[in-house]
Amino acid sequence: MAAIPTEGYSLTLRIRLANRPGMLGRLTSAIGDAGGNIGAIDIVDAGTGQLVRDITVYASGVPHGEEIVRAVTALPDVNLINVSDRTFLRHLGGKIEIHNKRPLQTRADLSMAYTPGVARVCLAIRDDPEKVFNLTIKRNCIAIVTDGTAVLGLGDIGPAAAMPVMEGKAMLFKEFGRVDAFPICLATKDPDEIVRTVKAISPGFGGINLEDISAPRCFEIEQRLKRELDIPVFHDDQHGTAIVVLAALINALKIVRKQLSEIKVVITGTGAAGTACARILKSAGAGTIIGVDIGGVVYRGRENLDAGQQWWAENTNPENLKGSLSDVIQNADVFLGLSGPGVLSVENLRHMSRDPIVFALANPTPEIMPEDAEGHVAVMATGRSDYPNQINNVLVFPGLFRGALDCRASDINEEMKAAAAEAIASVITDDELGPDYIVPSVFNRKVSRVVAAAVEEAARRTGIARRERSPEW
Amino acid sequence: MAAIPTEGYSLTLRIRLANRPGMLGRLTSAIGDAGGNIGAIDIVDAGTGQLVRDITVYASGVPHGEEIVRAVTALPDVNLINVSDRTFLRHLGGKIEIHNKRPLQTRADLSMAYTPGVARVCLAIRDDPEKVFNLTIKRNCIAIVTDGTAVLGLGDIGPAAAMPVMEGKAMLFKEFGRVDAFPICLATKDPDEIVRTVKAISPGFGGINLEDISAPRCFEIEQRLKRELDIPVFHDDQHGTAIVVLAALINALKIVRKQLSEIKVVITGTGAAGTACARILKSAGAGTIIGVDIGGVVYRGRENLDAGQQWWAENTNPENLKGSLSDVIQNADVFLGLSGPGVLSVENLRHMSRDPIVFALANPTPEIMPEDAEGHVAVMATGRSDYPNQINNVLVFPGLFRGALDCRASDINEEMKAAAAEAIASVITDDELGPDYIVPSVFNRKVSRVVAAAVEEAARRTGIARRERSPEW
Repeated sequence: MAAIPTEGYSLTLRIRLANRPGMLGRLTSAIGDAGGNIGAIDIVDAGTGQLVRDITVYASGVPHGEEIVRAVTALPDVNLINVSDRTFLRHLGGKIEIHNKRPLQTRADLSMAYTPGVARVCLAIRDDPEKVFNLTIKRNCIAIVTDGTAVLGLGDIGPAAAMPVMEGKAMLFKEFGRVDAFPICLATKDPDEIVRTVKAISPGFGGINLEDISAPRCFEIEQRLKRELDIPVFHDDQHGTAIVVLAALINALKIVRKQLSEIKVVITGTGAAGTACARILKSAGAGTIIGVDIGGVVYRGRENLDAGQQWWAENTNPENLKGSLSDVIQNADVFLGLSGPGVLSVENLRHMSRDPIVFALANPTPEIMPEDAEGHVAVMATGRSDYPNQINNVLVFPGLFRGALDCRASDINEEMKAAAAEAIASVITDDELGPDYIVPSVFNRKVSRVVAAAVEEAARRTGIARRERSPEW
Repeated sequence: MAAIPTEGYSLTLRIRLANRPGMLGRLTSAIGDAGGNIGAIDIVDAGTGQLVRDITVYASGVPHGEEIVRAVTALPDVNLINVSDRTFLRHLGGKIEIHNKRPLQTRADLSMAYTPGVARVCLAIRDDPEKVFNLTIKRNCIAIVTDGTAVLGLGDIGPAAAMPVMEGKAMLFKEFGRVDAFPICLATKDPDEIVRTVKAISPGFGGINLEDISAPRCFEIEQRLKRELDIPVFHDDQHGTAIVVLAALINALKIVRKQLSEIKVVITGTGAAGTACARILKSAGAGTIIGVDIGGVVYRGRENLDAGQQWWAENTNPENLKGSLSDVIQNADVFLGLSGPGVLSVENLRHMSRDPIVFALANPTPEIMPEDAEGHVAVMATGRSDYPNQINNVLVFPGLFRGALDCRASDINEEMKAAAAEAIASVITDDELGPDYIVPSVFNRKVSRVVAAAVEEAARRTGIARRERSPEW
């Protein structure tokens, strides 16, 4: 991971040391010599002749943190009492909670929020089912559903181990989209069972965000749920990524002055995210798209194509080229990597068209490191926060669901996705646009607002909005 | 319902009226004459010669509210602009929301709550599954699961219409037990499907509160889930009621100086709640229990007994009495009604043993009204908030789950239920105890604390606690 010490890998060391001049200096020097950055120093307890201090240290990763601990332990007259990983402290007891919107402290409160008053509200919904949107959390609430089979880059770690990610996602939904999202981690990997479960729990939710479900099951699950539910269903790993990629490409093409319809795009990785990118690019009118996977270029007639690859064979690579990445990268305008570390070489870059655009999105290690690509590319983006142009789904999902919920959309369709991409791209003005600034920061609060507005407009235009006017927030 | 105007049936009338002396007086008189209580009067807009006012009026029910509106409309020079039901206003957009426990405003926040830091937390859980309790919301989070088939007294109104009740319940869990409870309303009534769905969504929850599922399906669903899950499963309609009934009976018996082991209890209603009451009373050592339902007394050999009634035939009515309520009420010490309005007559009371105890829990209209029973009973309780001794599950479920979650209990067993009942009873000291005060108020904050402590102690004693020490709160 990142070689730079960050708060994401920070430790708090509780240390007892003799209370005499020079002790702290020796300690901090040892930490500094080991490459740790000191974030804060606090006194916990000052006894006779001894001090207990909490020292917060940023490391660059787990092994580096262990190294720093060893360096501290080796010091004479220094007693390491405890090491806490600050990231774990942040997760203790979970990261989200339920909050009552109104007080419940008097009998009058109780009689309106619960019995007997609530019965009238129940009957109003029974008599007019649409009212469930207005009178319950359904209006603003979605489920984040996973089976834990493809969590981050960690693979099939199971539903319980997936919870911290889903809770983090719920936090992002709330912070950036004011959407109430609740994690539902499923103890089944069977597509039928997943579809059945999500349908069964759907009455109280206004939308379903599928998350970290491995391919190819994710395609079937999403398609069936979209068909069978009347609320938006969105597999973020596919479409969230695709939408930000399209947004970034729209802006990158402005810099190199090329048209989407004329470019040749080579995509490595034909899994869930790669396929969604190819689909959105094709639907946006991209010139030529060619997919490359572990077996080389995907073409019609290649042996043993699975259903996913078959889509590529039929819908991309119009000249039906064969060979490897090195073959098809010739004269490509755009490289889009959704595969693995080091897939793209500097030699490959030399054979691309003028002003190459490279989105190397493998995480944590991209298809080519920005420092290696420098000088050979016009625009470069990665999935990482420590380089410019981070392709991050956080730019999409909060605003997308905000817009869909606000107009009570029954689905998230292609027009809404395209509108979201255009909206993200539009946040960066022509004046601001540059090779190091093609997508807005994840902390730019304007993004979710413009995405929500564009998505809602697209839903209304395509006739799937079920609410005449938006709520006033 | 209650004949007394309450906030639970309050309206806000927006009224335009001429701005001249005496107008408001005429208006408030008309409301008063119609039996409405005025809660508040506000000026919304003061134009030339005209005033717009919001008048908050308490009515005694829906028809009464309509009557008040008609009285106002009949007044000359009074223009009724709008009527809002204040209970509905409280439900707009739902009553609960997701709240992030910590800020998410900097890149450091993001790197710890989400990627890349979160990956370490996920792997820690994958490597040691017990850690899911510490590092996610599972520690404090339960699902409130219903299929909407037996909601309040409204019957099978469906999952969407059940949402307002489940959200209200979630509020109660939070307010009185600090438990994060999330409503899951199911679009299926099939027991197999319900069991499968709850099991599928269980990894992120620390407990399951089943709610408003009709009998006899509720028995099977609860039993199967208890067997197949390693987290507490509790059907509140059954056991919550039973626990408060036992608590109230413990205290009522102190007043009449009788022993539980010597009394004869007649229960009307052999459904979910009635059966749970009979079970807990039997397990607490009650002398004789006799059940009466629509077909009369339940006895061994009665025709067409279903599985539920069969339990009664085998476990109650030791002398195998036959007949009607009037027959078996002779010399009964306790009448426990979980049936319907007016089932018990004053004549019946006259034939009970000395100092009869009557718990008439049918809602909203009890088996016998307290004003009719007065003078014929020693202790009387109902399910209503407008009479003394309200038997209300709110006294149980927040503290019960608080205690179970705090010690990470794998179940809620009989000992924990009995401990909860004893704890509720114990909140009322011998000095305070009286015929009008056998159960504490639902707003008594001490209740959930003592219930939680007693439940946790019982779980530890019976070996189903999985956490050595309780969290510090």
